[in-house]
Amino acid sequence: MKAGIVGATGYGGIELLRLLNNHPQITSITLYSSSQAGEKFEDIYPQFQGEQTHILQDLVPDMMKEDLDVIFLATPAGVSSQLTPKLQGGHAKIIDLSGDLRIKDASLYEQWYNKGAAPNEVLEKAVYGLPEWNKERIQDADVIANPGCFPTAALLGLGPLVKEGLVKADSIIVDAKSGVSGAGKNPNPLTHFAHAQENFQIYKVNRHQHIPEIEQQLSEWYSDIDPVTFSTHLVPMTRGIMATIYVQLNKNLTEDELRNTFERYYTTEPFVRVREEGSFPCTKDVYGSNYCDIGLTIDTRTKRVTIVSVIDNLLKGAASQAVQNMNLIFQYEEKTGLSPLPVYP
Amino acid sequence: MKAGIVGATGYGGIELLRLLNNHPQITSITLYSSSQAGEKFEDIYPQFQGEQTHILQDLVPDMMKEDLDVIFLATPAGVSSQLTPKLQGGHAKIIDLSGDLRIKDASLYEQWYNKGAAPNEVLEKAVYGLPEWNKERIQDADVIANPGCFPTAALLGLGPLVKEGLVKADSIIVDAKSGVSGAGKNPNPLTHFAHAQENFQIYKVNRHQHIPEIEQQLSEWYSDIDPVTFSTHLVPMTRGIMATIYVQLNKNLTEDELRNTFERYYTTEPFVRVREEGSFPCTKDVYGSNYCDIGLTIDTRTKRVTIVSVIDNLLKGAASQAVQNMNLIFQYEEKTGLSPLPVYP
Amino acid sequence: MKAGIVGATGYGGIELLRLLNNHPQITSITLYSSSQAGEKFEDIYPQFQGEQTHILQDLVPDMMKEDLDVIFLATPAGVSSQLTPKLQGGHAKIIDLSGDLRIKDASLYEQWYNKGAAPNEVLEKAVYGLPEWNKERIQDADVIANPGCFPTAALLGLGPLVKEGLVKADSIIVDAKSGVSGAGKNPNPLTHFAHAQENFQIYKVNRHQHIPEIEQQLSEWYSDIDPVTFSTHLVPMTRGIMATIYVQLNKNLTEDELRNTFERYYTTEPFVRVREEGSFPCTKDVYGSNYCDIGLTIDTRTKRVTIVSVIDNLLKGAASQAVQNMNLIFQYEEKTGLSPLPVYP
Amino acid sequence: MKAGIVGATGYGGIELLRLLNNHPQITSITLYSSSQAGEKFEDIYPQFQGEQTHILQDLVPDMMKEDLDVIFLATPAGVSSQLTPKLQGGHAKIIDLSGDLRIKDASLYEQWYNKGAAPNEVLEKAVYGLPEWNKERIQDADVIANPGCFPTAALLGLGPLVKEGLVKADSIIVDAKSGVSGAGKNPNPLTHFAHAQENFQIYKVNRHQHIPEIEQQLSEWYSDIDPVTFSTHLVPMTRGIMATIYVQLNKNLTEDELRNTFERYYTTEPFVRVREEGSFPCTKDVYGSNYCDIGLTIDTRTKRVTIVSVIDNLLKGAASQAVQNMNLIFQYEEKTGLSPLPVYP
Repeated sequence: MKAGIVGATGYGGIELLRLLNNHPQITSITLYSSSQAGEKFEDIYPQFQGEQTHILQDLVPDMMKEDLDVIFLATPAGVSSQLTPKLQGGHAKIIDLSGDLRIKDASLYEQWYNKGAAPNEVLEKAVYGLPEWNKERIQDADVIANPGCFPTAALLGLGPLVKEGLVKADSIIVDAKSGVSGAGKNPNPLTHFAHAQENFQIYKVNRHQHIPEIEQQLSEWYSDIDPVTFSTHLVPMTRGIMATIYVQLNKNLTEDELRNTFERYYTTEPFVRVREEGSFPCTKDVYGSNYCDIGLTIDTRTKRVTIVSVIDNLLKGAASQAVQNMNLIFQYEEKTGLSPLPVYP
Repeated sequence: MKAGIVGATGYGGIELLRLLNNHPQITSITLYSSSQAGEKFEDIYPQFQGEQTHILQDLVPDMMKEDLDVIFLATPAGVSSQLTPKLQGGHAKIIDLSGDLRIKDASLYEQWYNKGAAPNEVLEKAVYGLPEWNKERIQDADVIANPGCFPTAALLGLGPLVKEGLVKADSIIVDAKSGVSGAGKNPNPLTHFAHAQENFQIYKVNRHQHIPEIEQQLSEWYSDIDPVTFSTHLVPMTRGIMATIYVQLNKNLTEDELRNTFERYYTTEPFVRVREEGSFPCTKDVYGSNYCDIGLTIDTRTKRVTIVSVIDNLLKGAASQAVQNMNLIFQYEEKTGLSPLPVYP
Repeated sequence: MKAGIVGATGYGGIELLRLLNNHPQITSITLYSSSQAGEKFEDIYPQFQGEQTHILQDLVPDMMKEDLDVIFLATPAGVSSQLTPKLQGGHAKIIDLSGDLRIKDASLYEQWYNKGAAPNEVLEKAVYGLPEWNKERIQDADVIANPGCFPTAALLGLGPLVKEGLVKADSIIVDAKSGVSGAGKNPNPLTHFAHAQENFQIYKVNRHQHIPEIEQQLSEWYSDIDPVTFSTHLVPMTRGIMATIYVQLNKNLTEDELRNTFERYYTTEPFVRVREEGSFPCTKDVYGSNYCDIGLTIDTRTKRVTIVSVIDNLLKGAASQAVQNMNLIFQYEEKTGLSPLPVYP
Repeated sequence: MKAGIVGATGYGGIELLRLLNNHPQITSITLYSSSQAGEKFEDIYPQFQGEQTHILQDLVPDMMKEDLDVIFLATPAGVSSQLTPKLQGGHAKIIDLSGDLRIKDASLYEQWYNKGAAPNEVLEKAVYGLPEWNKERIQDADVIANPGCFPTAALLGLGPLVKEGLVKADSIIVDAKSGVSGAGKNPNPLTHFAHAQENFQIYKVNRHQHIPEIEQQLSEWYSDIDPVTFSTHLVPMTRGIMATIYVQLNKNLTEDELRNTFERYYTTEPFVRVREEGSFPCTKDVYGSNYCDIGLTIDTRTKRVTIVSVIDNLLKGAASQAVQNMNLIFQYEEKTGLSPLPVYP
């Protein structure tokens, strides 16, 4: 199978290349970059020197959509909204890692992203690629909107309780923390080492563009859900997201009933692991893997449920979830090419 | 003035020594350690080699309480509950940095600390040393219960709204994050470098011993307050605490009214800085200083207030707050010996 | 093929398990631990929860040596010197990741390790498993002494020049830097996060037990070599080694001649990458991989050659090099199970 | 006394402001910035919000040189070579923290810095501000060339042996490691957090502009000295330099004789601490202070001496050494305003 990666020099692109390189069904990988076409990928990233050589290619949508089997768009916001229409309708399946195709309501996208939205006909075709909750539609999709890193952690943590209608509609708070790679590879003052190291920062308070993405999915599960409070922090580490989620329940549950609700949904899912009572995951438990680990408990004093959901933001939050979606579309075993255990320590 | 530090080899003790060494009113500092008496402090901590030499002394409470003017107890939980009775009633003022004297209700202490409480007569005498809220009682105190690191950040962030009765009683959530030094200097698997670095961990979910300390003070401000949800996380950095606080209000406030409520309490306080609208502090803004920086905003979508409060856990959360209390007791200018600006980068 | 790992709960053991889990020729993996037998591995390391379950087994050498095809010893110094004699002579090949079988001269081992050496007949049989330099003997070996992390980086950097007799015998200086995982998983004050982070430490100056291992191999290549100066530093990161090597040459070489000397030895080696002139590797270039990257140059002012050699200390410096040795012994393609590209960022 | 800081928004400038703010002899501090004049310093660096307000001023050399008592130039290379001639000859003493005035030979400067040198008459007047070795000339100076961070660590480590003529002229190797703040506050790919963290990098191999500065001072101590090998590495931490120095001696010394040579020079120096035999400093031993700590030993196997010299690159390597020079010029006690002990942990 022939794969193409657009925006291969970003962090999502690099991880895609590494994963596809180990994927048994992939026979060729072509890398595309509008700004660095003609350069040798291995000259930019010496990590990747070895047997293969990749020259970054110019984008030729008409050819790509016929020659390739799958195209990954690992581009900044505002690119795939323009590019997807040109790549659609051919042979290739499209998996977009950016936020451009996730929000069904174009005006909502424009309000939170401050950019023009993709055409409505593209938005309508794009399937939200959260495999644990949307497997059937993904298998039939031509275009995947790969979920954002924070929404992946938040939604996998919230899904069972919201879907079951157990959560008070106005009670959801997601306090999320991310490693610095989530901010991408372009240097800026907030991610300058001497500033970001030995520092803990909050950013985009109440303004993060992942908020409407989270709320859209929650509303699909439970239409009466209220807006959520969602905060994002920068942790002085490269990878990893923890979402600490606080909700109030509509009815009393025991610890066992709470845990059973999660296990009912996730026990057959190969990449979600629910912890036993009293055990909570840390981000290093999933480092370098496609896992989402979830711990949870009820506070008998406050009646609030605390849910802790961790992922590797570049993998389950981006590249490996995209490969998981590809596996589903092409009917490979869901774990193909994604078997590696987390890297520890 | 003659100062003594009990438990000088812990992180709180080291910082106390550094601060008192620069304090213009301190003429002598004696270090005490039950486990390492006889050793030269500078042999254990080469950072402190220089003109002075300190030999760690055995504890002789009867002499200490008469010879010294002020005694700092930088000891683990369970020590000062035993030691304070022996040090009281003499010439020396006592400032306890541990949690032993903070909880007025002995049974509550025993429940959360899992240790025997201090005698009631000691607990009654101990004044909670949060200078911004308790200045007059501190000035008259013989014994100070120096606040915990998390409660300092949480309470300074919550004080104005709770005191004014503006907060819905059951709505308080404090999502707190701390650098690893908060766990003390004894190595353990959670703070082993290869585990803690490039990792973000949650711990003691709903079980942290700082919960009753926070609730006790909140109840003093507003007697009808409900239990709070309080979570603690380990950030891969050495110093710094951020408390991200979520509350709902009893009445609608504008951003200006919200900010004015805080400024009314803190504008005359030398160590609390309230940020302008749209600006939020990071932990490095207060690194190496006695400042608490506070940012805040109302989310118009959810009606929740987000308050971000940062401190240096070893300073405003421990050693420099203890010196601030000492300054108040002895009627020195509150900032004496505490002037240094934060260290950046 | 059936593999066993003794000492599976150490950092080397964990990485072995991850690699063998992805190795297409391995059909079963049994984990052994003398101190934690009976425990579930996944309870100790939640990273490894998933489809498989491993119960840590007691060591029964007589059975292991017949039932298993390959046994990895990932044990502390002093264990395999005792254990290898009991495991030898059966069906299983033995790959020892500790330092016990590396030093041929028992008295030298005892002097540097301060422990009793392995029996001479074991030392004689053990083949030093540096694949790039010892491939034929490894293919015939029953027992492999897997090289130390520092020696791997130092020797791959020094090999071509020393083997060719180009280095002045008394001029070798290796200034080595390692991530903290090299110190193992047992917490201690030097590797306590609050001490090791934002810190750079030197340790075991002129006393590191890897010195005789380096000198033994250098002497094999060039018998007149003098003792080397070798220093080790702790870098505030988890993984990675850089050896910065300084040598003087016996004769003048151009940059091209220097580079050609290296390429002559390494161009066919799948895991050593020599950089172009002017390019030097950093540790992240090989993170998570079995690569050793080498940069080098001659200083025209001082006539010294600087060689920069980087590896992942837990992989090429331990676990993945052990798998590489296993592949050679069992005549699998050398890269089997080791294909993953470095993880970046 | 009135002080001015040019280039106040760089890391050296920020630290100068913090130190001068605590200096008892300084009555006013004016901050200058050509690029950000008119801005409020506290808006750029919220760390510094508090009682004082600083508006960044435009440079008016004619006024500055008469109104100010001391001017610190914390500017990038190429600025003070132009600016110093305009600031000279008035009332103010000038302390230049950049490399522009350090190299006496203009052509050498131009070769290593790739910029035009300062006029010869400025270079002749500028006194190299290494207080431990140049105290008398500093006390009489009008213009100080404040030493570079690496040269400070290297020269304090090499001084006693070179000055005594004990070092073989061609044997000096300095393997230096620095925290990332040494690269300044402008973000770039090498100092981007996701690249620099969990990474160890070498840079400017044999090309660092501090090489001629080190050699110039060594030649003054011992005219027959040969070029030195000097390497620089980036450590994933913000502050701190360790120089690991290797030399061969002209004659045999015992450990005691070696140590005595250092103590002879440094025992009266308030900011250099020589360690006892067997003890070596780490960078955290001097963090946040003006100390240089030195450990040393002779390897009986190789006859080489290893010297380990650590400083805080922003303090003894820049800002606090500049204040030390100011103290000497104005005949304040050398430690004035510099008393703080290192910050630990």
